[in-house]
Amino acid sequence: MTHPDIERLVENLESLAPRGDLAVDEVRAADIAQALTDMDEQAKVLIISLLSDEKAADVLAETDEHSIEVLLAHISAERLIRLMGWMAPDDAADLLGLVPRERRGALLAGLEEDQRRSVSTLGDHPPESAGGIMTTEVIAVGSNEKIASALRKVGTAEEPEAINTVYVVDPAGTLVGVAPLTRLLTADPALPMHRVMDPDVISVEVDADQEEAARIVDHYHLPSIPVVDAAHRLQGVITVDDVIDVIGEEASEDMLRLAGTNVLHPTSEPTLKRLRARAPWLTVTLLGTFLASLLIEHIEKTYFHSGAEVGGTFSMLLYFIPLIGGMAGNVGTQSSTIMVRGFATGEVDPRRPMRVLRGELVLAVLIGLLAGVLVGILAGLAFTEEPMLGWIVGVALFCSVIVAAFAGTLIPFACHAIHVDPAYAGGPFLLTLNDLSAFVIYFTVALLLLNAFGVS
Amino acid sequence: MTHPDIERLVENLESLAPRGDLAVDEVRAADIAQALTDMDEQAKVLIISLLSDEKAADVLAETDEHSIEVLLAHISAERLIRLMGWMAPDDAADLLGLVPRERRGALLAGLEEDQRRSVSTLGDHPPESAGGIMTTEVIAVGSNEKIASALRKVGTAEEPEAINTVYVVDPAGTLVGVAPLTRLLTADPALPMHRVMDPDVISVEVDADQEEAARIVDHYHLPSIPVVDAAHRLQGVITVDDVIDVIGEEASEDMLRLAGTNVLHPTSEPTLKRLRARAPWLTVTLLGTFLASLLIEHIEKTYFHSGAEVGGTFSMLLYFIPLIGGMAGNVGTQSSTIMVRGFATGEVDPRRPMRVLRGELVLAVLIGLLAGVLVGILAGLAFTEEPMLGWIVGVALFCSVIVAAFAGTLIPFACHAIHVDPAYAGGPFLLTLNDLSAFVIYFTVALLLLNAFGVS
Repeated sequence: MTHPDIERLVENLESLAPRGDLAVDEVRAADIAQALTDMDEQAKVLIISLLSDEKAADVLAETDEHSIEVLLAHISAERLIRLMGWMAPDDAADLLGLVPRERRGALLAGLEEDQRRSVSTLGDHPPESAGGIMTTEVIAVGSNEKIASALRKVGTAEEPEAINTVYVVDPAGTLVGVAPLTRLLTADPALPMHRVMDPDVISVEVDADQEEAARIVDHYHLPSIPVVDAAHRLQGVITVDDVIDVIGEEASEDMLRLAGTNVLHPTSEPTLKRLRARAPWLTVTLLGTFLASLLIEHIEKTYFHSGAEVGGTFSMLLYFIPLIGGMAGNVGTQSSTIMVRGFATGEVDPRRPMRVLRGELVLAVLIGLLAGVLVGILAGLAFTEEPMLGWIVGVALFCSVIVAAFAGTLIPFACHAIHVDPAYAGGPFLLTLNDLSAFVIYFTVALLLLNAFGVS
Repeated sequence: MTHPDIERLVENLESLAPRGDLAVDEVRAADIAQALTDMDEQAKVLIISLLSDEKAADVLAETDEHSIEVLLAHISAERLIRLMGWMAPDDAADLLGLVPRERRGALLAGLEEDQRRSVSTLGDHPPESAGGIMTTEVIAVGSNEKIASALRKVGTAEEPEAINTVYVVDPAGTLVGVAPLTRLLTADPALPMHRVMDPDVISVEVDADQEEAARIVDHYHLPSIPVVDAAHRLQGVITVDDVIDVIGEEASEDMLRLAGTNVLHPTSEPTLKRLRARAPWLTVTLLGTFLASLLIEHIEKTYFHSGAEVGGTFSMLLYFIPLIGGMAGNVGTQSSTIMVRGFATGEVDPRRPMRVLRGELVLAVLIGLLAGVLVGILAGLAFTEEPMLGWIVGVALFCSVIVAAFAGTLIPFACHAIHVDPAYAGGPFLLTLNDLSAFVIYFTVALLLLNAFGVS
């Protein structure tokens, strides 16, 4: 069943029974969840009310936050409790996090004790920490337990299909080993777990950043990673499909921050919310470039005679403002994007800027040299009225490209050191900063060269 | 063992035996692979020559392409054949793809028949297709085969630890069902597979793009996806850890393309290769902004009297060039980044531009209005000599922001339609285009308003 089918279904809703064995119940939850994103409020509510509780729970676990917020106002507390009962504890905790605070207590109280304990434990962890994305549904067995007993535990788990690894703990709950499910299949079921487990377990602490957990899973190609507390007691597990979501989310966040906006589902959000997400960096650009206007005026008034008298050379200098700003901005953005992406993939170590700075500067010198010579010649040929123009533009371009590469490389490292997301600083802020510094360099070079050689 | 330890090890290499039970053999392959990236040629070669064949094969399967290319010149054909024998067929095929073409035949001929067949089949698929990233190590059982026999096949597979799913095929090899390994564990081992399998299998065709395979795995939270040929015969499987790599790679590619550069491991590549990757879009910026210089000169010469005479108003107009260009560029980049990212995550349907265009334009009108009014007032207050200046800047800003949002939204869709990666067009090309169109709008507005109301 594709999107158009679901949309047609919604159109004919009036003729359908209020709930039951509907065709839409046979559509995969992930597809309904995605279709919901594009629907208006009424359609969203109708679809969810038509689904069985089990399906509706799956759909809510998969759809976007904005749709959930819209739906929460229309689902009764009784049904919400039933839906949360169908969900994995981590999904239920995520849902609860979107419920207005004053409703949460009543919902938690309605859950069965097991689920309530898991959900409230998970809810205590920040949503972007390892604890916030783990599930508490993990198979833990004692090191003296038999393999046969471990396999029975796997078989009777709530969602056995997600399990690929069995963890071994000591009586205090401390994680001491790991065994892939397939290894248990081929071993003698009468053996104790410590005979087949691997004692060298890679784990992550519960309050580690979700990005760190994702990086470890990716780096070692793990099917899942156990989450432990400070005393190394097993708390839960993060599976590789959660990691995919994290990697996709973090890449989206970085990319949108580099562009100067910061919502995750921007096209489905209401307009004013999107405006709020995009406005801050546009304001930085606006004020920064307005400052540039004042700066340019100040330079003209102070160092060149007023417009009516000299004009010529100064006007010609102004023609190259887009070129100087554009090249500095472009080189700086390339450097900062490479750093931001390198931090995320682990290719660049955020504590060691010197490893990459030299390479970026060598490259910038080459780019500055090539671009400076090319533009210097072009400008000299095109604007013969001012013989110094080619020299000014070429030298300024060379200098401002190097400064831009320097700033574009180092500012992400500085942000990392003071715990600000480097992607924020890699975008419009850096562009504006590079614009301003390029103009200062440009006019300084112009004044120096004109005073030394020019007909001022 | 951390990086510094490995580096220290390399420093003391002379005192170590040429090969054997070395401490470095106990380091995880992924860690050695990452450490290799930072080492110089000599150190890379020494590390690989010190490792056992099995470990060296694991390391080569994980490290970056540049390191492999460096190493290939130093590994004998005999050892390369042994190393490929240790590798999974997909990793061996990837390695072979990096070997100079004239050496490939001899290496293939050296492999055992099974491995040779798998490697050469995999090598036939484009590296970024589903076939290019799949492995042929897949557990396929007949639909009348017993569960017990399927479990035996899993237990005797070459790399059982990666297996979580068993696929069911008919006698012609056509994929007819799927069963998670955990379900087989709890079922009666004497049952035939067709009693426990799920006949509704999500699969991907062998020549589909790797990004499509990744999107399906992510969307349905699958642990792995079977790869089939046009006749729906099972060819191999893509596991979720390969998908993580694809998602990370594609995000990196998009991000670096948006920044106007296009290598995947930029900081580890040699300088000239990096220059070639970054130069094309810098050249676009350079020529585009040089064109802007000529355009501005042309406008001054044609529509304003020569600099020496009037100067004043035209100079003032030029002060706002960075602001007009900066705002148009920023709004356009935000729109295009949201589209590029939306295509990648599936949030935006690349065949339906109208769904998002309205939202982006409404937002652009709001941004243009707010920014236009604010800057109009500021410019009016700061530059009292030209009473029309505030109006000109404000109106031009309003118009150019809307045009930039329009271009930033639609150009990625156009690129998708003509099969060009939208990320390429979202970066410096769009910025330069928006610069140029913003300047044309700006001077047009200026001439219209000055002619109508101003003291020209």
